[in-house]
Amino acid sequence: MSQTAASGVRPIKYAMVGGGQGAFIGAVHRAAARLDGRWELVAGAFSSTPERSRASGAELGLDASRCYGTWQEMLTGERALPEGTRAEAVVIVTPNHTHYSIAKGCLQHGFHVICDKPLVATVEEAQRLVEAAEKSGLVFAVTYNYTGYPMIRKARELVHTGAIGPVRKVFVEYHQGWLATDLEAAGQKQASWRSDPAKSGGGGSIGDIGTHAENLLSFVTGLEITSLAAELTSFVPGRRVDDDATIMLRMTKGARAVITVSQICVGERNNLTLRVHGETGSLFWQQERPEELTVCKLSGERLILSRGDDHGPIAAAATRLPSGHPEGFLEAFGNLYRGAAEAVLARKAGTPAAAESPAALVPGARDGLRGVQFVDACLRSADANAGWVSLDGE
Amino acid sequence: MSQTAASGVRPIKYAMVGGGQGAFIGAVHRAAARLDGRWELVAGAFSSTPERSRASGAELGLDASRCYGTWQEMLTGERALPEGTRAEAVVIVTPNHTHYSIAKGCLQHGFHVICDKPLVATVEEAQRLVEAAEKSGLVFAVTYNYTGYPMIRKARELVHTGAIGPVRKVFVEYHQGWLATDLEAAGQKQASWRSDPAKSGGGGSIGDIGTHAENLLSFVTGLEITSLAAELTSFVPGRRVDDDATIMLRMTKGARAVITVSQICVGERNNLTLRVHGETGSLFWQQERPEELTVCKLSGERLILSRGDDHGPIAAAATRLPSGHPEGFLEAFGNLYRGAAEAVLARKAGTPAAAESPAALVPGARDGLRGVQFVDACLRSADANAGWVSLDGE
Amino acid sequence: MSQTAASGVRPIKYAMVGGGQGAFIGAVHRAAARLDGRWELVAGAFSSTPERSRASGAELGLDASRCYGTWQEMLTGERALPEGTRAEAVVIVTPNHTHYSIAKGCLQHGFHVICDKPLVATVEEAQRLVEAAEKSGLVFAVTYNYTGYPMIRKARELVHTGAIGPVRKVFVEYHQGWLATDLEAAGQKQASWRSDPAKSGGGGSIGDIGTHAENLLSFVTGLEITSLAAELTSFVPGRRVDDDATIMLRMTKGARAVITVSQICVGERNNLTLRVHGETGSLFWQQERPEELTVCKLSGERLILSRGDDHGPIAAAATRLPSGHPEGFLEAFGNLYRGAAEAVLARKAGTPAAAESPAALVPGARDGLRGVQFVDACLRSADANAGWVSLDGE
Amino acid sequence: MSQTAASGVRPIKYAMVGGGQGAFIGAVHRAAARLDGRWELVAGAFSSTPERSRASGAELGLDASRCYGTWQEMLTGERALPEGTRAEAVVIVTPNHTHYSIAKGCLQHGFHVICDKPLVATVEEAQRLVEAAEKSGLVFAVTYNYTGYPMIRKARELVHTGAIGPVRKVFVEYHQGWLATDLEAAGQKQASWRSDPAKSGGGGSIGDIGTHAENLLSFVTGLEITSLAAELTSFVPGRRVDDDATIMLRMTKGARAVITVSQICVGERNNLTLRVHGETGSLFWQQERPEELTVCKLSGERLILSRGDDHGPIAAAATRLPSGHPEGFLEAFGNLYRGAAEAVLARKAGTPAAAESPAALVPGARDGLRGVQFVDACLRSADANAGWVSLDGE
Repeated sequence: MSQTAASGVRPIKYAMVGGGQGAFIGAVHRAAARLDGRWELVAGAFSSTPERSRASGAELGLDASRCYGTWQEMLTGERALPEGTRAEAVVIVTPNHTHYSIAKGCLQHGFHVICDKPLVATVEEAQRLVEAAEKSGLVFAVTYNYTGYPMIRKARELVHTGAIGPVRKVFVEYHQGWLATDLEAAGQKQASWRSDPAKSGGGGSIGDIGTHAENLLSFVTGLEITSLAAELTSFVPGRRVDDDATIMLRMTKGARAVITVSQICVGERNNLTLRVHGETGSLFWQQERPEELTVCKLSGERLILSRGDDHGPIAAAATRLPSGHPEGFLEAFGNLYRGAAEAVLARKAGTPAAAESPAALVPGARDGLRGVQFVDACLRSADANAGWVSLDGE
Repeated sequence: MSQTAASGVRPIKYAMVGGGQGAFIGAVHRAAARLDGRWELVAGAFSSTPERSRASGAELGLDASRCYGTWQEMLTGERALPEGTRAEAVVIVTPNHTHYSIAKGCLQHGFHVICDKPLVATVEEAQRLVEAAEKSGLVFAVTYNYTGYPMIRKARELVHTGAIGPVRKVFVEYHQGWLATDLEAAGQKQASWRSDPAKSGGGGSIGDIGTHAENLLSFVTGLEITSLAAELTSFVPGRRVDDDATIMLRMTKGARAVITVSQICVGERNNLTLRVHGETGSLFWQQERPEELTVCKLSGERLILSRGDDHGPIAAAATRLPSGHPEGFLEAFGNLYRGAAEAVLARKAGTPAAAESPAALVPGARDGLRGVQFVDACLRSADANAGWVSLDGE
Repeated sequence: MSQTAASGVRPIKYAMVGGGQGAFIGAVHRAAARLDGRWELVAGAFSSTPERSRASGAELGLDASRCYGTWQEMLTGERALPEGTRAEAVVIVTPNHTHYSIAKGCLQHGFHVICDKPLVATVEEAQRLVEAAEKSGLVFAVTYNYTGYPMIRKARELVHTGAIGPVRKVFVEYHQGWLATDLEAAGQKQASWRSDPAKSGGGGSIGDIGTHAENLLSFVTGLEITSLAAELTSFVPGRRVDDDATIMLRMTKGARAVITVSQICVGERNNLTLRVHGETGSLFWQQERPEELTVCKLSGERLILSRGDDHGPIAAAATRLPSGHPEGFLEAFGNLYRGAAEAVLARKAGTPAAAESPAALVPGARDGLRGVQFVDACLRSADANAGWVSLDGE
Repeated sequence: MSQTAASGVRPIKYAMVGGGQGAFIGAVHRAAARLDGRWELVAGAFSSTPERSRASGAELGLDASRCYGTWQEMLTGERALPEGTRAEAVVIVTPNHTHYSIAKGCLQHGFHVICDKPLVATVEEAQRLVEAAEKSGLVFAVTYNYTGYPMIRKARELVHTGAIGPVRKVFVEYHQGWLATDLEAAGQKQASWRSDPAKSGGGGSIGDIGTHAENLLSFVTGLEITSLAAELTSFVPGRRVDDDATIMLRMTKGARAVITVSQICVGERNNLTLRVHGETGSLFWQQERPEELTVCKLSGERLILSRGDDHGPIAAAATRLPSGHPEGFLEAFGNLYRGAAEAVLARKAGTPAAAESPAALVPGARDGLRGVQFVDACLRSADANAGWVSLDGE
């Protein structure tokens, strides 16, 4: 665990919007932030009512004065506190359709932002946010957490250094089964807002998990999506958004990709799988067995790389335990928080992050925009009966 | 091995067209036919020249008088021999574009036919062959050999008996890597004719292995393909047929499927994988680990079924060894020959095969036709820039 | 992550002995303690010199006044602090031969103890420590961390509730490869003290990892070891302790077990595997794939249970993330700290822990004693040329 | 399948003793012999009564005149037939205790012998048979069929050429579950004779499957067993032979091994697993996934070799299908018959087999002897309460 090395640096103070009692992803963000001791939760607008916000904050050991009823109050309240006491960054873990206003407010008030995905509900909002973020000089991270896995970063490095030759075909699948029945009708909270087009942003599975698949594809290959053709399906009667999608993609440099996304695959849990086939080699990785990266060569050689062995500085910087001591989802998520902390320190110090530093590997507003464009293009293509559409709608 | 049941019945005599020295699939057919002792090779037109045909026949222990220079001579020659001596069936293992004439000739001369896939080169030929086969009263088998695996037959039974509820989404992938480089330019025999549109029938990977994927999809689900949208790609410079394909399919009863086919996936050998997701359960099977069938339930239960355990009469009839004693490709292929032998005996005896007998499970001319229609539809869709096209072209 | 729910309870303050810069296991303990926000590091005697102790403490954000030069000074210093400020518990992560004095001192001064394994160097020391711990009324936890895995706790529950019938045969293997070469000659720190009989307690691999194997066997089956026969080997020339061991064990109720332990298995990382065979079923678990527990039945059924699905309250209490979101080594380790925190709170409240509460599942001094007896018996048996010896030496 | 290439050579005629209706292993032998077309069954003494022998023979398509009531009659009868008609070799698949007389008779009458394992019931018989076989100049093969797997032969080659350095520790396990209940009381035929000490030769699991484990250990490493310590257990009440065994072995050159054997492991089918750890690398192979051999290096590299890829002439000579087209148990068994056929032809031609030819890789009488010595030593050690005993009893 020597890499953990919080090393005498004071933790960065942050506030959270959303993530109150009963929320899943907020707790994950807090645990990920706590993992390396580099972040400290000091305030929050956890729920839509002041009482519930305070109750959540109390459980988290926060002073009642730092538990706000709205994110607006929170931004104002924190800003009024002296430096060294007030939050410097805001973590946004509310339903998608609220991200835009909150994130914009944070930037306007000078807070760094860590925002859950998908970034916002429309391409226009996303573009405005990119502009705002870039003008602000603040850190803007989007928690595409699967990029935090060490072996995904190794895969990216192998592609970028030519280890498998030019990329030809990529398969990304993200299959879950938890929406195989009509959970939203039963009032399940996670299911409800995700399947409400007004809150999710139009896409169902395509927004919720399809954006992760798109991000992994883009992160690892470094290629751009030029056009795509999609079929979206709602299998569960009464569901108002897609719960299944197949997308064929054309990418720069002649590469092709297929993304399949589903939330009705009984028996699947969180099966995000990546296969990258290049001219001279291939890579294979599964989120549910994240410790291994398989590398195949034209010669027929099939090599298993284990997380924690010596795979160079990029993977090492994302690693906490020796090989054979399983790391998982939380550590990967924590790597985004580790990177975001470095990015904040670098901004303060005025030192740009090195190209392959943890800070540079944290997805930002442009990655968030691309995800929103991806969802938008899928919806346009499906409307056009799977016709090919460009990513940027032009 | 009690099921082997050589059982005193005389082997059925057969002749082979193609499959001479150096041919891969001919030797597989012969080994599959020999496996249960129910077929006996007695004649052949193994190559396009009489000398090479005789040389191949001699290696196989055949009398020179039964080694013919052309299939036409073979049919005439065998027909002239007395019953009990002459071949009763013909196995066709020549390149695809020659199947039609040979198969038609066999039927006209009263020989049962076992024909490699894809059936023929055009939909029209396929339709004529279906008519001819049905009129003839002869056995016509198409060696979609992957249907011979016991756990595939079990999967089919589970779907048909409702064990996973109505089928929603099916993923079939068939990924190979042996054509990742320009083998045909190097003169590799298998690669050469497969990549010549005139000999392969237009499709490359889509015909060679895509038809297997389509067949598995249809065999296991029992659903019909209504329409499809395909993208075909040739990644290797200079290649004249597709070496990669993605197909989105709409099927009867609202089911959806995705078939991905590729021969440029470095590191893949013969990775044919089937995943069937129903409303209440799922099935998962891989050709390279054919002994296991995974069954998932809505409850989250994940169950591994092992070939050779007690899975009922259908799987048992396709099984030779106890569980834990690996069976493989050859036994699966042999199950088609076992079924074809039963079908021939049943025709002779005038007793139709029971619905789930090995004989009834052998793919026939109509399955062959559907495969040719599938290739045709993929080519039409790709020409139309991935537009949705119907399978039958109407 | 709802279980994390530290829920407004103040973290328990603890001090650490050992675990300074460059130490592996100390950092793991700190991360495990931090995971749920229920422990707070406030003091330490991290190294054998005051300077280095302070340097380590500074890196961890501790005040210099709480960084001590010796554990004795630390106990005195902390004791002098007011309640609410001073440490209540001490975590001991020094080399084995020093555990006894430190742990005894802690108990004498009224500190709860969390001690790394193996407990101490001799059976006599271990027995004295058990007595001291039991008299003290303080919590005494031994970090056999592999018992913290949810699926191991589920395995234990399945055995205890009769799901696989009376246990017949158990296989535990713990194979590593990192000592396949003479690392200690190269001065590698971890290797050095482990392979010094004076510091390790006589056993090499048998003490370092064999005790984990023994503990897992005892924890899951609930059976007692009656006698054992062992062969210990040192494969690497010059090594002074065993780096490989095979132990045959006889247990109560007629059960038998085999433990194989090795640190010279090239290619193995941290391969701790458990197989429990009962009269009517079997269990299979691997530390490197800790999320799955395989259950086999007499009927041939093979069932995969996934961590995070509904497996009852015991597994749930050890779980933080939904299934498909991999948890690992750190979470399992954290479960011991979670249990120890509950145990401390229960002691304070005077409420004994329920039989299957996390607190009750934390290994204690008696488990530590049994591990030391196990090492002792292995050494006696090996000296007697693999003769059968009883665990307690009588 | 080009290697099959029986290539014009006439099949070798053989007779079978045992293997009548309902027998498992006889049918396996026949299928293995038939696989490559190099053997032809012409006669048999299939059962202990002439009627049943004839009935079995008729099912196999044999003439009644070649179906004998006793093996003695068979040897006399066949010998009286003209060369070219009579059997040249005899396959012995009767219960173990009858092997000695039959095999000796075969040698005396000039028949090559292919005998199932374990060779015979006592060390003395085995020694006499070795002498007789060596004097006879005839081929004497013992069907330790697991040595026929291509990747096992590759493993042997890798060890012999130093790819993993000097062997240190070997783990062989052979775990089954089919005798977890009292099958013999239920009259199950396979279970009955195996669990009758008079018929099995004293050992239960140790003879039935332990000998396979010993053979694999010796075949792959080329080391000699010097001494062993064993514990044998009968878990099922009333069982008269061991159904579980653990054996610690010391081998030449300082190597150590552990063999665990069990037939009461519920859920296990035919789990024969081999792990060989050398100074600089390791090998891992499982019979139930026989197509893969894993090779680990000191560097941490883990490499999967797939049967059918280019692994040199030894593996190629044992291979029929390309990689990705699963071969299994039958092909491995067939490789022994392939080797035995080559050995017979070589004897006829007076040309000794090359060191690594299929013929030279077929286990012979000396391997059979070693297996019997192994069982004998296990029984002696267990009687002596797991004391170390030498293999040869001196």
